[in-house]
Amino acid sequence: MNEKIKIGITHGDLNGVGYEVILKAFADEAMTEMCVPIVYGSPKAAIFHRKNMGLSTNFQTIRDADEAQSGCLNMIACFDEEVKIDFGQLSGETGHAAYLSLRRAVDDFKAGKIDAIVTAPINKKSIHGEEFPFDGHTEFFESEFGAKGDALMILMSPVMRVALVTTHLPLKDVAGAVTRESVERCIATLQRSLYRDFTVSAPRIAVLGLNPHNGDEGLLGDEEETVVAPAIKEMREKGVQCFGPYAADGFFGSGLYRHFDAVLAMYHDQGLAPFKALCGNDGVNFTAGLDIVRTSPDHGTAFDIAGQGKADENSFRQAVYAAVDIVRRRRMTDEASANPLKFVVRERDSRNHGDEPA
Amino acid sequence: MNEKIKIGITHGDLNGVGYEVILKAFADEAMTEMCVPIVYGSPKAAIFHRKNMGLSTNFQTIRDADEAQSGCLNMIACFDEEVKIDFGQLSGETGHAAYLSLRRAVDDFKAGKIDAIVTAPINKKSIHGEEFPFDGHTEFFESEFGAKGDALMILMSPVMRVALVTTHLPLKDVAGAVTRESVERCIATLQRSLYRDFTVSAPRIAVLGLNPHNGDEGLLGDEEETVVAPAIKEMREKGVQCFGPYAADGFFGSGLYRHFDAVLAMYHDQGLAPFKALCGNDGVNFTAGLDIVRTSPDHGTAFDIAGQGKADENSFRQAVYAAVDIVRRRRMTDEASANPLKFVVRERDSRNHGDEPA
Repeated sequence: MNEKIKIGITHGDLNGVGYEVILKAFADEAMTEMCVPIVYGSPKAAIFHRKNMGLSTNFQTIRDADEAQSGCLNMIACFDEEVKIDFGQLSGETGHAAYLSLRRAVDDFKAGKIDAIVTAPINKKSIHGEEFPFDGHTEFFESEFGAKGDALMILMSPVMRVALVTTHLPLKDVAGAVTRESVERCIATLQRSLYRDFTVSAPRIAVLGLNPHNGDEGLLGDEEETVVAPAIKEMREKGVQCFGPYAADGFFGSGLYRHFDAVLAMYHDQGLAPFKALCGNDGVNFTAGLDIVRTSPDHGTAFDIAGQGKADENSFRQAVYAAVDIVRRRRMTDEASANPLKFVVRERDSRNHGDEPA
Repeated sequence: MNEKIKIGITHGDLNGVGYEVILKAFADEAMTEMCVPIVYGSPKAAIFHRKNMGLSTNFQTIRDADEAQSGCLNMIACFDEEVKIDFGQLSGETGHAAYLSLRRAVDDFKAGKIDAIVTAPINKKSIHGEEFPFDGHTEFFESEFGAKGDALMILMSPVMRVALVTTHLPLKDVAGAVTRESVERCIATLQRSLYRDFTVSAPRIAVLGLNPHNGDEGLLGDEEETVVAPAIKEMREKGVQCFGPYAADGFFGSGLYRHFDAVLAMYHDQGLAPFKALCGNDGVNFTAGLDIVRTSPDHGTAFDIAGQGKADENSFRQAVYAAVDIVRRRRMTDEASANPLKFVVRERDSRNHGDEPA
């Protein structure tokens, strides 16, 4: 546990606010005390952004992650070409550069050279193509480290954690994608992640309904009765402490979310609109369910303010903190459960709410 | 303006928290100084609730709204029968009693005996049937005072106002119901209501997108490009200050809602989950777009705590305040616009942002 955790950072779309939030966050020396950061990117582009915005963060260029040094921001050049930077514009060039950054970071993770990846935002239209046929980072990491449905998007802040059954899907396709199987799988993944990545010994999960007013007993849709409630029942029988379904508006209005370790929402805006209303834009996105630990800020490329020095780096900073924290907690849990006897005793403890071990 | 405004109050479902919030709210004498309240209900049922919860609010029984006195809570018996009260239970009897209360209040409004109606919550399953084939109060009032599509549901609080294009609809039907026509009509109704009912001289309206990330330029749904944006453009050309579409999560996360007089959301949970997350359960529901002024608390029958004295009356109290306020403002606007010359000068004023009248 003494060795510093190595965090790979992908630079995202060069026409967005990626380098701005990276350089601003690492202007604080405390950041390099906590981890060894390695940016997978382009020193030339970083210098361009730095100069353009009058920032002064230093970095050292290395050729391989093995050369990364403690106490400074390390940067690997992932491509040779000169990429034209045009703030706020769609560009296949910057999309390709974003892909090369991701590619090398993922390869280095697989080779054991880094412990986690924090991704700066990509533009989905710029990067979309043959080499990256995905709707977003989450789906890309899922394809690299698992099978379809393995990844679970969790937005986290000190106020709450929200996970999503469906993520980047047109609203008209949401109801069809919310199935017993998908809800059960998400509950299971969320429970495991809360236990393993957040060291919550007996996680309590709230599950939202799909329809307004939870379907009003079938008058406004029946998915609560046919899909969500049976999925909750099934997972409770398997020992998961999950509750609901809850009508989304009343759930957030009554502050009920404070009583749970995480909330499982059925779709993007149902979970993220109230999450961001309460937590602002300081949330962190974590891709659970995979071998890799991957976090990101919960904002996009912010093309409207790119290159203007206006971007707030706090969410990116929190994403780095979260990645370090999750790697540490996951190691702790894995070490604890490596010894079967210890693991069993711990389980009993938590189920008895702190009673003496049997 | 000297005569007190007469507020009709319907008692909702007798197995819910209706009388509890009515009696608690009118325990405060300031409430009867502000308006003349007339409960359309059942004195016997009111006494049962009062005794059951140890409340002490007095009321006087009258036979007709014309007999209502200032300075006290008036109550009209809307039916003779003995209704069995069984807290928290579905019941056709209490559903019918809720309907009779609504029926008489609406008839009295049409006869000019009251100025507005505040509705305590009904249970949709208990009241649903031949005499009330509606999904909720909003649809009932729409059928009594307008045509389909005239009513607009607005949730209001000191923090913000949110209106909904679709309300009580299964999620799978939402995308199909969001059309250019429905979005344009809602923008127009919202603009008129902000002007007439809230005396906002030049209302600014934010319109949300339908899909996550506003459809990410078509990758996650195209309704922003084909429906919402064209509707906004059309209404702007007609002189309405409407803006968007905005992605719901970022809109609430960035606090952008503070810069608008109202937000138009595409569906129930998209608007109400963040609204309630920010405003708690103290919001007031207002049915705009109709001749009648109708408000209600933004909670339901709360069967889970009915009869236990635990219900919070604040949202109901705010609903009464809001009804009085809207009636007053609507009268002011209507009086001002009754004189065409004055109206024209005023319009110029507001468009010139306070410049001298031309």
